Amino acid sequence: MPIVTLITDFGTADGYVGEVKGAILSAAPGATLVDVAHDVTPGDVEAAAWVLSRVWNRYPEGTVHLVVVDLGVGGARRAMLLQSGGRWFVGPDNGVVSRALGEGMPDTAWALDPDRCASDTLSSTFHGRDLFAPAAARVAAGESPAALGDPIEFESISRLELSEPHRSRECVRGQVAHVDRFGNLVTDIPASWVSPTALIELGGTEISGVRLSYTSVDPGQLVAVIGSAGTLEISVREGSASERLSVGRGEPVLVRPERD
Amino acid sequence: MPIVTLITDFGTADGYVGEVKGAILSAAPGATLVDVAHDVTPGDVEAAAWVLSRVWNRYPEGTVHLVVVDLGVGGARRAMLLQSGGRWFVGPDNGVVSRALGEGMPDTAWALDPDRCASDTLSSTFHGRDLFAPAAARVAAGESPAALGDPIEFESISRLELSEPHRSRECVRGQVAHVDRFGNLVTDIPASWVSPTALIELGGTEISGVRLSYTSVDPGQLVAVIGSAGTLEISVREGSASERLSVGRGEPVLVRPERD
Amino acid sequence: MPIVTLITDFGTADGYVGEVKGAILSAAPGATLVDVAHDVTPGDVEAAAWVLSRVWNRYPEGTVHLVVVDLGVGGARRAMLLQSGGRWFVGPDNGVVSRALGEGMPDTAWALDPDRCASDTLSSTFHGRDLFAPAAARVAAGESPAALGDPIEFESISRLELSEPHRSRECVRGQVAHVDRFGNLVTDIPASWVSPTALIELGGTEISGVRLSYTSVDPGQLVAVIGSAGTLEISVREGSASERLSVGRGEPVLVRPERD
Repeated sequence: MPIVTLITDFGTADGYVGEVKGAILSAAPGATLVDVAHDVTPGDVEAAAWVLSRVWNRYPEGTVHLVVVDLGVGGARRAMLLQSGGRWFVGPDNGVVSRALGEGMPDTAWALDPDRCASDTLSSTFHGRDLFAPAAARVAAGESPAALGDPIEFESISRLELSEPHRSRECVRGQVAHVDRFGNLVTDIPASWVSPTALIELGGTEISGVRLSYTSVDPGQLVAVIGSAGTLEISVREGSASERLSVGRGEPVLVRPERD
Repeated sequence: MPIVTLITDFGTADGYVGEVKGAILSAAPGATLVDVAHDVTPGDVEAAAWVLSRVWNRYPEGTVHLVVVDLGVGGARRAMLLQSGGRWFVGPDNGVVSRALGEGMPDTAWALDPDRCASDTLSSTFHGRDLFAPAAARVAAGESPAALGDPIEFESISRLELSEPHRSRECVRGQVAHVDRFGNLVTDIPASWVSPTALIELGGTEISGVRLSYTSVDPGQLVAVIGSAGTLEISVREGSASERLSVGRGEPVLVRPERD
Repeated sequence: MPIVTLITDFGTADGYVGEVKGAILSAAPGATLVDVAHDVTPGDVEAAAWVLSRVWNRYPEGTVHLVVVDLGVGGARRAMLLQSGGRWFVGPDNGVVSRALGEGMPDTAWALDPDRCASDTLSSTFHGRDLFAPAAARVAAGESPAALGDPIEFESISRLELSEPHRSRECVRGQVAHVDRFGNLVTDIPASWVSPTALIELGGTEISGVRLSYTSVDPGQLVAVIGSAGTLEISVREGSASERLSVGRGEPVLVRPERD
């Protein structure tokens, strides 16, 4: 039985995560549940999109990624089932797949039909339990998407308006795409665009050179590295770059080649 | 092998959750562990009772719900094993089953006997690990309750003194039963007692009408909906009703029919 | 397939825990993952060492404990694989095994060789995903340590400089070894060194006698008990001893026999 991973903003004090899991295990008794993240900031679709993009391909083919950060629950937003690279996504059509798909398109995409896949009583406030969990369970159990909904046009899938990094002959312009628990500022600037001797500007500060690891500088020092997302990352060794520089997600980052 | 769910106030920084899980997996190697909630406010039995009531029936029959929010550990409170509707409860006899049972009685109830089911060294501070986990594992593994303890009178089971909602010809009076992570004020007033055109008073504010979903109002607006517990719920779309109204659990809620 | 437990400081908002789990489940599809603790204070190796020591032997033989609190990632610290009492440890060689091993030595110890066990692209910032997770998965899958690295001298294993409790004819001197979520002050003083009538001094306060359980005193009162680690513990019933006394880890604790 395939894996079902869970990404939510439900926290771990209420019973919501437990209700979702119960719904899945009732419909797909042998499913392997994997908690990825439940402490996404409430309603922060962009953060959930970041998390999803990081885990998407790290799981075996057949894995179902269930993502419920769903400000539009009960409203007009569609419920969606996507397949890409052999993995599945189940969740609201609110742009949360934007980073996982990137510029690409999924292999298949379906609008989940509540009449076909929701539990008997579909609440208006908790589709994670009543719609997405049963759908994810049935996909994990091997049911055909056609039993759960209807195909949709790939172009109709919601996308977040994410800034793209740009490069010219003189410089690279990007931004902070995610701030993690440690206060690391993870940018959207690909490693291949940055030379080891680059000058990096953000938050009114200049950092000279990209180092091999956090440990290349002393504790408490700012450092630029290539992070585990394969992009430029600004950190403070054993500290928080976000706090040090008072910057967060969306902060512009400018990278210039070595000063002459 | 059945599912064992875990509801605790242990948090996820210490090793306590890990010790409980180790004890279960050692005694019932094939058990499926499901984390429901570990961030219940320390000692908040009422919150744990709420969580338990939400998940109880959502799991397959045979599931064992292990709940350890246990201010009375080491004292005179009993250790308890209940069966109701095919699911099991293991935990302290401190009222935490009150909402799951409601007005009803369990099908069977047992006082766990430490001599029969505790590990070799029963600490006075951590029955979650030393008594409840081994008991839950043995129940999950199919052992008879009689091997673990003795039957108790249903009437002797501890119950929380929970306020009950009331209705008269003029109005409905209930209260906030739970405040969730999002600041939603979940009341104990059943959906069937509330008309779509009702006037709702709480925290010095009046809300007119029950809407279909959070998205029926603009972001930042107060809204009354029927929540996923099947009761009246007061929310702020994309915000916290608890913060907006400065009210918490226990806050009285008055519902009157439509104004003439 | 054996159990792989996870102890990290990754938190549960980012995708890091999910990436580690994906790497394990990709390499060892049937592994049973167990979340022990992901909210260790960032970089707090001593807290992680405490957690690991509590869970080490509570899991069945063959269990792999994966611990990633890794300030030295990308630097010179070794990656390590240990075996002790039939359980495995995988993680950085930064002293995190100090409390689990105590004064003892492991049965076998290996330096993980990135060339043999890391994933194709070894980042410099996330060995949890790229090195430790694949190694843990392969150990869980039954591979020989020799396929993953080379034996190391036991004496070369990093150890934290942990204070040891001492006793003389007049008194016992120890310290607070861990402060848990509840504010309990768990000391390193073994139960067998403390008489029920002892006088305990810490944080400018004196506590008279060791009680049987938290419930031996009224709510809000300070109490000394033998905690679930088998050591002296200072608590406030239904409160936080750490807050009450304004003391934390490392605080000296003095125990004297009964006053005449």
